[in-house]
Parts: sequence; structure tokens; C-alpha cells
Amino acid sequence: MPPISPRIRDTQDPPIPAVRAWAARYGGAAGPLLDLTQAVPGYPPHPDLLAMLGQSAGSRATASYGPIDGEPALRSALAADMSRFYGAAIGTDDVAITSGGNLAFTMTMTVLAGAGEKVMLPAPWYFNHRMALTALGIPCVPLECRAEDGFLPDPDRAASQMDGVRAIVLVTPNNPTGAVYPPGLIARFAVLARRHDAWLVLDETYRDFLSAEQSPPHALFADPDWRDGFIHLYSFSKAYCVPGHRVAAIASGAGFRGALMKALDTMQICAPRAAQTALAWGVEALRDWRVANRDLMAGRAEAFRRAASQLPGWRLDALGAYFAYLRLPQDAPDAVALAETLAVERGLLGLPGPFFGPGQERHLRLAFANAEESVIAAVPSRL
Amino acid sequence: MPPISPRIRDTQDPPIPAVRAWAARYGGAAGPLLDLTQAVPGYPPHPDLLAMLGQSAGSRATASYGPIDGEPALRSALAADMSRFYGAAIGTDDVAITSGGNLAFTMTMTVLAGAGEKVMLPAPWYFNHRMALTALGIPCVPLECRAEDGFLPDPDRAASQMDGVRAIVLVTPNNPTGAVYPPGLIARFAVLARRHDAWLVLDETYRDFLSAEQSPPHALFADPDWRDGFIHLYSFSKAYCVPGHRVAAIASGAGFRGALMKALDTMQICAPRAAQTALAWGVEALRDWRVANRDLMAGRAEAFRRAASQLPGWRLDALGAYFAYLRLPQDAPDAVALAETLAVERGLLGLPGPFFGPGQERHLRLAFANAEESVIAAVPSRL
Repeated sequence: MPPISPRIRDTQDPPIPAVRAWAARYGGAAGPLLDLTQAVPGYPPHPDLLAMLGQSAGSRATASYGPIDGEPALRSALAADMSRFYGAAIGTDDVAITSGGNLAFTMTMTVLAGAGEKVMLPAPWYFNHRMALTALGIPCVPLECRAEDGFLPDPDRAASQMDGVRAIVLVTPNNPTGAVYPPGLIARFAVLARRHDAWLVLDETYRDFLSAEQSPPHALFADPDWRDGFIHLYSFSKAYCVPGHRVAAIASGAGFRGALMKALDTMQICAPRAAQTALAWGVEALRDWRVANRDLMAGRAEAFRRAASQLPGWRLDALGAYFAYLRLPQDAPDAVALAETLAVERGLLGLPGPFFGPGQERHLRLAFANAEESVIAAVPSRL
Repeated sequence: MPPISPRIRDTQDPPIPAVRAWAARYGGAAGPLLDLTQAVPGYPPHPDLLAMLGQSAGSRATASYGPIDGEPALRSALAADMSRFYGAAIGTDDVAITSGGNLAFTMTMTVLAGAGEKVMLPAPWYFNHRMALTALGIPCVPLECRAEDGFLPDPDRAASQMDGVRAIVLVTPNNPTGAVYPPGLIARFAVLARRHDAWLVLDETYRDFLSAEQSPPHALFADPDWRDGFIHLYSFSKAYCVPGHRVAAIASGAGFRGALMKALDTMQICAPRAAQTALAWGVEALRDWRVANRDLMAGRAEAFRRAASQLPGWRLDALGAYFAYLRLPQDAPDAVALAETLAVERGLLGLPGPFFGPGQERHLRLAFANAEESVIAAVPSRL
């Protein structure tokens, strides 16, 4: 076989299939399998959205190619939703639609960086972000986040590592830890990025699950110059429960967007159209439904907090949106070995810390969003 | 604004929107606008496929995440279809499903090559292939194809340029020229690639439009060692008229596939599920319909050949599947200027040769697949 690229050899294997392979060895002794690996909403899409998806996908119009940067109706609906959520004027021209959040990130990185141009990721990181940088040949600067800081990144520590950094990527509410970054912290990173002529890329895939008190989560869009250095990523997968339809978005200024059009055309041509059309309806129509789900998720988070408090030796280091990040008991084996044991013997699937970066050997991530409160209450008995 | 990557600066702008912008200046004097820019089937999807798409997209099941490498039902259906078409045993495990053909190419290149590892593209090339290499930082080795050879690539010329080449990419039936590569020529490239420990990547997006006499188009899958160096790209967009649903496929051996899984997970997570489910039904059920469309397209190709023969000064240098590649009259301006004039004054949209690579200043590509025979007959009056 001819060689493959060193870039892809150095890219880690997809974590979730690896953990699910452990589950195949579970005999059922502890009860039904609890899969807390993936950020999957544990409730169905709204029935009216399903009806719209069906209607839209059955039409001749959505079968043909669409605009490279997305359906104007969805771009406009999201811009209006963002304007309301962030209290700022975001326009249709600021928004482009992508085939899912991972491709949004891949394309954004393709536009911002190349060989020798570094991108800073707080560690632990969303594993697909790290994999994308490796696969694209973009050097990564890890920014260590500490349990004692609630896994919040430290702008002062970041400032000492900015040499050659083209972009800082922040994810809030965070994947994997669930940590919600305070507005002041986000603002400090925006200042830091600007001072070093770097881009700030903010991934707010989970923003719909912030409480009313946590919103708006930052004031970046209120800065009249935001389009000169700030790029915003969003996904419809979580808020609308449609990850299988692959629709996400990038908000940016015209300078970035002109370059982004090349990546959009090259990598996706257009995002899937039928789901875009249905979501264009759903953004406004499902506002109350989204709020109700936010409250449901907050209930699950509280249920998880209660459950975790019953666990001797375990420590809940961060929690928010979809995720809990737990420190293992001192006498436990390392996280990968423990996660395999939990999967094979207790039927509890979680992702061990090392999948999210260096120094995470004592942590386990559980995506509680999948599970109803009664299931969450059963988690301690499995740990 | 902070800098963007030199890679993306060096990537050409998307061609089709540029040409469509010319069309906005057309006043209508020559009749309705004829858009022959994009490879779009000029007929709708089968009504039963639309019904299946609607049903599938309206279900809760397709809204959730699916397997990274595609729905087993679609992988299996395509493997069976390919086995029949190529007269060889291709298995479900050989096939992965992607979010469209452009992403299939981007991911394949990401796996095979990186900085300093070259990829050979016959020129003229499909512009998005060239754009992908530039955006990924992969050096391109252009392999000049000549009008006097019917725009077939020459393996001997290729042999002298193989230094450092990791992969040879062939597209047949070709985009942009329409040229259909003979089986013997494809076999010679397979030998060449193997001799140089390079991959052969064959894009057969338009294979369903080959005539019965042209099928099977090559014997590569009959080689028991094909999985060690051959990668096959296919798209459902053209044959099933569903480009807006974004579904394509990569066939390969296990060695490549193991690495590909990393790219699939990182860049797409999964392909859109609803369309995969509907297509899994359609591959077998719409076989006769596809054959009828192949004959329809052959009729359009013949109509275009007749129309082109009436054009004084123009020369039809290649024709096939969806495309005709025409040499301009000697007294015409260069292709970009002429294409703009045709768009603005005659309402005929085609893509000028320079969008497809160096040395194409005297050519114009027309995608006749969009147009009914009566429309094609009107093309000469616009040129």
C-alpha cells in the first residue's frame, strides 16, 4: 500500500466508536446500557419540525443545488435570533450556513491558518477540534485549564504563549467540561487576540442551554468592530435535535467571509437544503420549545449534581449545558482503564479524559443530556 | 483585520457565482437566460424518491447522529450496484458515505497528502479539485492534456512528472471536458501509480451516464489487489438528481479506510441521514429510471453535437456525460472576455476555460445536461 499522509497518521482515532466497541462486551448484569458518550439530545425534535422536514425533503426544489453560503431564509432567521439573544445588530450578510459544526470548524481553520501558523486550544479540548488541526497540518498551542479554576482558561497564561498564534478557539458552554465562561473572561480573550493580531473563534454550539441569568453570555457582538477579528460558530444540531441533518453556521465580517466562500464552495458546495428550509421556519416558531428544553436540561444538570454528591471519592469539577467532568477517586485506575471497566462491567459509557488532551488521566466526561432524570439518578450505582 | 492563511489567499474564487453575476447584467434581448454553467440534471428526481425523501426526513430516527461511515443499508446497496456495474465483488466494508462529492475529495486528499506531498491533476481540471489542494497546502502537479488527444491524459507524459507524487487523480467521464477515458488508458495509469508507490484516485461521478457499450468503463475492481492502491469516488447527486441532499461515497481498501475514518469523524461526523435512507431504497428501485436518463442524456449530447456542427469557426474538442468543451473561433477574444459578452449580451452562461487551469484561454465549457434538446438547438443562435 502506498503511504498515507503523516498528518493523518498523527491524528487520533475517533473516540466514540472506540468506547462503543467496549459496550459490545457488556453482558447486562447492571441493567440497561447507559450511553453517556455523545452530546445527543435525549428527546425528539418537535413534531412540527419533523413535519416541516418531511415536507421540505419531499419537494423538488430542495433536491437541487442551493446557495454556497446557505438559504437566505435561514441566514436571516438566525441573524434575527442572534440579534435578539446577544442584544446586538447581526445581519443576514454576517451569516453563512455549513454542513454541520465540525465542517464549520474545519473550514474556519482552513481559512485562518496553515503550516506554521498556530491555533490555541484550551485543554481539555473538543477532540474533533484537535483532530482537525492535526489533519490540516496546523500546529496547536495547548492552553492548560485547571480543575481548581473550574476549567476556565486563564488569559494571563494565554498571553505568554501567543507567539505565532493566528487564532484562539474558545468553546462555551465548554465541550468537554461543561464550564460556562463568564462574559468578562471572554472579553479579556477578545482583547488579548486583538493585541496579538489574532482571530478569536468562539464556538457556542450549546448557547441555547444557558439559563436566562447567563444570557447574553458575552458582549462581543456589541463591539462595532467585531467583524474585524471575531468569528462565531453555532450548530442547529443540539438546540433543534437534528444532528442527523447536518446544519450549522458561521457568523463573521465581510473580510473573513470573502475567503470563507472559497472553502464553502470547495468543501461543501452547499449545506443540505431540506433541513435548512425547515429550520428557517423553526428558529422563530420553536422559540418557546427551545426555552422549555433549556429548563429540562437545567433539571438534568441539577439531577446530575445531586447524583454526583452521593459518590464517595468522586469530585464534580465542572458541569453545564450537556456535560459533567468528574475527577476520579484517588484509588481508581487511570481514566481509560476505568472507563473500559465501567463500560464492560457496569454498562455505563463515558469518555475518559485522555481523549480530550494531555493531563486528563484522572477525569471522566459524562454527557448527561441524553438521559432522563430517573436514569441520571441511577448513575451513582454504576460508578 | 488579522491575516488569513496564504493557502486560502492563493485559492481561486468560486467560479459559478462569478459567472452568474454577469448574468444579472443581461437585459433579455436574445430570449430567456440559458444557464449552462453547473452540472445540474435538467429533470426532477423520481417522484417515488421524493416521497421516500419526505418520509425519511420526517422520521425521528434520521434526526439523530448516524454511523460515521454511513448507513449500512446505503453502503450495501451501493456495493451491490458497483459489483454489478463493474463486474467485480465490492463489499459493504469497502464503501463509506460522505456529505457530498467535494467533501469526499477533500477528505481523500487530507488522508493521502500533506505539505510537500504532491498530487497530480490532469489539466484542465475540475476547479474544486484544484481549490481543495491549494486550500489544504498540497502541491499540485498539472498533467497537460491536449485538444489533439481529445483531452485524454498521456501516461508517458505523466511518467516523467511522478517525482514526489503521492496520488494521481483521474475524472472520467471528465469534468470539465466530458472526455471518456478508455479502459486501457485507465489501466496504464493504475500501473504507473503502482510503479511509483502512489495512489490512483478515480472520480466517476458521471459513470451512470456512460452508454452500455462504454460499460464497464475499466477493470480496476477486478484486480484482486485493488484495495492496496486504488480509491474510487462516486456521487449520488447526478444519477439521482439530488445534489441539494449532499450524498456521495468513497470505495477503498481497509488500509486507507482506517485512516479515512479519522477524516470522516473530524470533518462530517456523519453524512445527512434522511437522504441516505431514501437512496438506500433508490439504488435498486430506480435502476431502470437511471438507464432511461442515461439515454436522455445521450440524446442531449447528440443534439449538442448537431448544434455545434452548425457553428462556423467553433470546434467541438470533447463531449460526454454532462459536458461539451468547445474551442473558440480564431477571431474571438479570449475565453473570459467572450464568456462575459455571451452572458451579458446573449444570455448564454458558460464557464470560460481559464477557470479550469492553465492554457485554457481558447476554450469554453457548456454543461448541456441542464437543457432540453429544444434549448440545446437554440445554443448556436446565441454563440
